[in-house]
Amino acid sequence: MGNDVTLSLDDAGALCRRVLAGVGLSAAHADAVAEVIMAAERDECRSHGLYRLLGCVHTVRSGKVNLDARPTVTKSAPAIVTVDADFGFSSFALKTGLPLAMRTARRLGIAALAINRCFHFSALWPEVEELAEHGFAAIALTPSHSWVAPAGGSRPVFGTNPFAFAWPRRQQPPFIFDFATSATARGDIELMLRAGQALPPGVAIDAQGNPTTDPAEALRGAMLTFGGHKGSALAAMVELLAGPLIGDMLSLESLAFAEGTQTVPCHGELLVILDPSRFLGDRLGENLDRAERLFDAITEQGARLPSERRYNARSRSIDNGIKIPPPLYEELMKLEAAADVAENV
Amino acid sequence: MGNDVTLSLDDAGALCRRVLAGVGLSAAHADAVAEVIMAAERDECRSHGLYRLLGCVHTVRSGKVNLDARPTVTKSAPAIVTVDADFGFSSFALKTGLPLAMRTARRLGIAALAINRCFHFSALWPEVEELAEHGFAAIALTPSHSWVAPAGGSRPVFGTNPFAFAWPRRQQPPFIFDFATSATARGDIELMLRAGQALPPGVAIDAQGNPTTDPAEALRGAMLTFGGHKGSALAAMVELLAGPLIGDMLSLESLAFAEGTQTVPCHGELLVILDPSRFLGDRLGENLDRAERLFDAITEQGARLPSERRYNARSRSIDNGIKIPPPLYEELMKLEAAADVAENV
Repeated sequence: MGNDVTLSLDDAGALCRRVLAGVGLSAAHADAVAEVIMAAERDECRSHGLYRLLGCVHTVRSGKVNLDARPTVTKSAPAIVTVDADFGFSSFALKTGLPLAMRTARRLGIAALAINRCFHFSALWPEVEELAEHGFAAIALTPSHSWVAPAGGSRPVFGTNPFAFAWPRRQQPPFIFDFATSATARGDIELMLRAGQALPPGVAIDAQGNPTTDPAEALRGAMLTFGGHKGSALAAMVELLAGPLIGDMLSLESLAFAEGTQTVPCHGELLVILDPSRFLGDRLGENLDRAERLFDAITEQGARLPSERRYNARSRSIDNGIKIPPPLYEELMKLEAAADVAENV
Repeated sequence: MGNDVTLSLDDAGALCRRVLAGVGLSAAHADAVAEVIMAAERDECRSHGLYRLLGCVHTVRSGKVNLDARPTVTKSAPAIVTVDADFGFSSFALKTGLPLAMRTARRLGIAALAINRCFHFSALWPEVEELAEHGFAAIALTPSHSWVAPAGGSRPVFGTNPFAFAWPRRQQPPFIFDFATSATARGDIELMLRAGQALPPGVAIDAQGNPTTDPAEALRGAMLTFGGHKGSALAAMVELLAGPLIGDMLSLESLAFAEGTQTVPCHGELLVILDPSRFLGDRLGENLDRAERLFDAITEQGARLPSERRYNARSRSIDNGIKIPPPLYEELMKLEAAADVAENV
């Protein structure tokens, strides 16, 4: 085993964009995707970082993604902004729809941003973080592929169905969480399979519905939700709000749509955007201070805010660059070489 | 021990209204409170049913509730309906604000209903159920009193912070869940203390922050959230959205406001109301059908939908009336006798 390869954020971002352009994504499309991959890599969310670039490339090569996707933004109601992603990646569609969604939330106080027909692989926190940087509170929800059994069941129905939330802070980066409603992330199970590690108990069942700690069995069976019936209820809510409510696929449908290609899921996404300044008017400042008292009550007893670890990683990456394990680096170099060939054809 | 006393829903509701009027609530105020108590009793959610009437009466007698509360409805932004509960019970304020909130959601596609300065004791599911009966999807959130430690912490910060959600169905009663983000209910710990029983592991810590199954130690220490850091993150979101976002108290502040009186908490509540017909237009029907495919995939493997048990109880209560244990019935009779005296003064 060699040593990790260190790259600056700029160099890694450029690599990421070259690889994505090399498989045929338009520049704007590649930029949007690279941005969200690099945000994850920078914050040491490894399963959504450069590792996920491999999945993106595979998805593109499977022929399902529209390389020249042109997201279109419409309003289905005064407070609902809808982006048709045109079968491109979600990050590109989000970037296209966000300005109107933010203007709408600022004007009305609350707005929904629905993204349809997008390929989705990214963490949700970069999306709600951007909204919180603009002073909004926001919730983001997506289904995925049906890998997760409902509480009391034995067969997959739900996706990993992440739930993300951000709250704006004046003197600090936003309060953010982003968790899968599954007991663990699909990406983590894949990483453990690659590393030959056992899963913790309570996160998966095998194809017969029995508990398993074998990542291969888990991938053939079903994952479980976190928190028993409560997590299962939340997972159902994510399916409903980011699926039928916005006229897009359930995780069951999205998996069928992929036709066994192991591509990243194609489905919808819902963001709910709330403007504290419209709820509070001239009481905004005192209530942002009130939120700080909540955060202080958590941190003063030595507990961590959900985003702290990520923000610490971010500082390290900005200062020292990112470290890539040799096997991943080799795969990235192969993709880059293929991109160079493609460019010179 | 005598037998349970059986009352028809009508008779129990009338009893409930007489007791509430007897402690001084205006007729409209008493009607709104009785309605939500009877919904819980009917669905065999006993902790929020007639038993909770005792807590309401105690709260009123403590002098904190405004008996003649006149909730006022305003709009702080086009999509935000705000009800000042005027220190009455939340159910009265909700009833007052709901028509405008529903009209707003129907017109704009999504709306927020913020209730401020209310005493809150009810389950949240009757509130989102009413919205779903009108065709809306809805989320409801409230803080409570700070009894729950954050993940990794040792001291109470959060309330039990319930999270409720409803989805409308055409041929069935709505899909609904309503759960505390704490691992167990405060009332259950008190009951186990009286019964001399040990708590299940993982629901509480003692005053030093160590895990405990001793209910007395737990009441001096803190409850834990469900689902570890994910449940803790959700509890924080509930605090932020139903507290600072709407300019109302944190669970820490609400507990301080109660001044040791053991009254039901006074704080705010947030509802987010989404209109599927505005998201979907003429695709509404096919997407309500799509949601049914999700429910079928859950129930066909023998798993239960979160609201099933309640709906079964409802059928029983409508057919056969409700059964009240003798000790509770005696307390209710005392309250009714006091109400008769009050009426004849």
